[in-house]
Amino acid sequence: MSHATDITVIATGGTIDKEYLLSGDLAVGEPAVARVLHTLVPSVTVRVVGVLALDSRDMADADREVLAREIATAQTSAVVVTHGTDTMADTAEYLSGRVADGVTVVLTGALRPETVAGSDAHVNVGFALAAAQLAAPGVYVAMGARLFAAGTVRKDLATGAFVALPR
Amino acid sequence: MSHATDITVIATGGTIDKEYLLSGDLAVGEPAVARVLHTLVPSVTVRVVGVLALDSRDMADADREVLAREIATAQTSAVVVTHGTDTMADTAEYLSGRVADGVTVVLTGALRPETVAGSDAHVNVGFALAAAQLAAPGVYVAMGARLFAAGTVRKDLATGAFVALPR
Amino acid sequence: MSHATDITVIATGGTIDKEYLLSGDLAVGEPAVARVLHTLVPSVTVRVVGVLALDSRDMADADREVLAREIATAQTSAVVVTHGTDTMADTAEYLSGRVADGVTVVLTGALRPETVAGSDAHVNVGFALAAAQLAAPGVYVAMGARLFAAGTVRKDLATGAFVALPR
Amino acid sequence: MSHATDITVIATGGTIDKEYLLSGDLAVGEPAVARVLHTLVPSVTVRVVGVLALDSRDMADADREVLAREIATAQTSAVVVTHGTDTMADTAEYLSGRVADGVTVVLTGALRPETVAGSDAHVNVGFALAAAQLAAPGVYVAMGARLFAAGTVRKDLATGAFVALPR
Repeated sequence: MSHATDITVIATGGTIDKEYLLSGDLAVGEPAVARVLHTLVPSVTVRVVGVLALDSRDMADADREVLAREIATAQTSAVVVTHGTDTMADTAEYLSGRVADGVTVVLTGALRPETVAGSDAHVNVGFALAAAQLAAPGVYVAMGARLFAAGTVRKDLATGAFVALPR
Repeated sequence: MSHATDITVIATGGTIDKEYLLSGDLAVGEPAVARVLHTLVPSVTVRVVGVLALDSRDMADADREVLAREIATAQTSAVVVTHGTDTMADTAEYLSGRVADGVTVVLTGALRPETVAGSDAHVNVGFALAAAQLAAPGVYVAMGARLFAAGTVRKDLATGAFVALPR
Repeated sequence: MSHATDITVIATGGTIDKEYLLSGDLAVGEPAVARVLHTLVPSVTVRVVGVLALDSRDMADADREVLAREIATAQTSAVVVTHGTDTMADTAEYLSGRVADGVTVVLTGALRPETVAGSDAHVNVGFALAAAQLAAPGVYVAMGARLFAAGTVRKDLATGAFVALPR
Repeated sequence: MSHATDITVIATGGTIDKEYLLSGDLAVGEPAVARVLHTLVPSVTVRVVGVLALDSRDMADADREVLAREIATAQTSAVVVTHGTDTMADTAEYLSGRVADGVTVVLTGALRPETVAGSDAHVNVGFALAAAQLAAPGVYVAMGARLFAAGTVRKDLATGAFVALPR
């Protein structure tokens, strides 16, 4: 086979992992990606690791360093990172150049929590699982059914859309 | 950009499109893929076409010919076909060699209807949307978070898993 | 307090308990009422018992006798029975006159399985939990947001609606 | 028939009506009770009115007066009010003594928004629809599968449970 058959998924928190508390607040809970994967009769082996449980806006470079180290320990050439959407593009840029040769890292997340009706969590995770196996080595953002190389994308905060940066 | 930004999705029925009727029967309804896409703030343009509304087991070569003609009219190099799972591998083989150069066709579906709790419809469609944009031209089956080239895969009816054929 | 604070729920199968199997069939699974109750922070104590796991159309008088005996052992004056919809009215008539004085028995179920999007399972169970505590002793059918005394109701198979019998 | 066959439902906002916005905030949206009722093949006629769209904590006596006037215009003896949970008991006390003879008013809501997985919205609304038809005239709170007369209940903010006041 020409593509990797084993995938590492690293959860860092963000909207995708938000759960509604009885207090009326939303808070980062268990990695939603585990619930997404649970719907599959899988044809690949996927390992899920939770390393951070942050709101995207609280993601600092020290956290990104923790994430980079976790990626470095992954035993697979395909890595998916679930991440908050507001700073996803920033983390992708940070990771770019800090990832080992031959490894494809795809960041994804959700505009609505996986626990909310109409969430994009499942379709985004599915997209990222494919991209991590099929795209050339490097760091990417996968949102809105499109794959963007790190450094070429931003989130439009008004609409939630991920759009290509002008070149 | 090196990958297509427009995708055609062709719905043919199958489990993914099954709805529960008040009679107690399950029947093929509207294309579920439209509901999946509705969760996205899309960064690509996707056109959805419903050409057949068949149970997978009722898919005959005459139907596959209808599907092949629809694929030939698609204006995009990325094509996703939603299809019942029992004969998905057969349809992929039929289409192989009947698709224009430069076009990537990815068949997907679901083991549980999109209308049923715990369905794999959203993750599979997400996977296929990526594969149609990223894989080399040709015909593929995308199930269980893995991409199989046409002619290299079968469904294990006992478990529902899609597995590689021995070479 | 003037109403009972403890409720017995007896599951007998039926559409409410149907689950989608990977074979493509629907089959009676675990009592759905447990999942409904799990959404609550309860102010009452509810005991769930599964005594039968039948399609409504397979419910025979021997099964109804099993159900009647289970009701007789309930330690509460409020009893909810989850049941298939096609023969719910028949079972209510059977139970009528076979239930101890002072006990309120409310049969309910769902037109769509609890596992299917848009199911009426949760609203029907909620309705029945109230009716079992509030209605006068006797046997009832609770469907479509209305409480019918046993012997006064039939299901309209064409529409799924529960309608009052002409007097 | 001994009970009312027509029900008025008045939505006032609260957690039950909360929707997730792409900004990451939760806000009161359309009345969730309409989606709950949509699951039914109804055997009664229900009219839904949205009169307020408030967070429970923002409910002031001026708002309660608006609600009381709306209840006074209802043409049915069964009235359900959907309401935020934090001040539901207060509104019930306010309405008590301000409702016409012969009318049963039942306040309900949800600890989790109807749009969130595992919400209690459907079961609570079902419970309230029964209570409004079956309980003696007066004002009530229906939460946690129990009916409380106005003035006899409080919400335990630590657990979310509705509990009887000591007498």
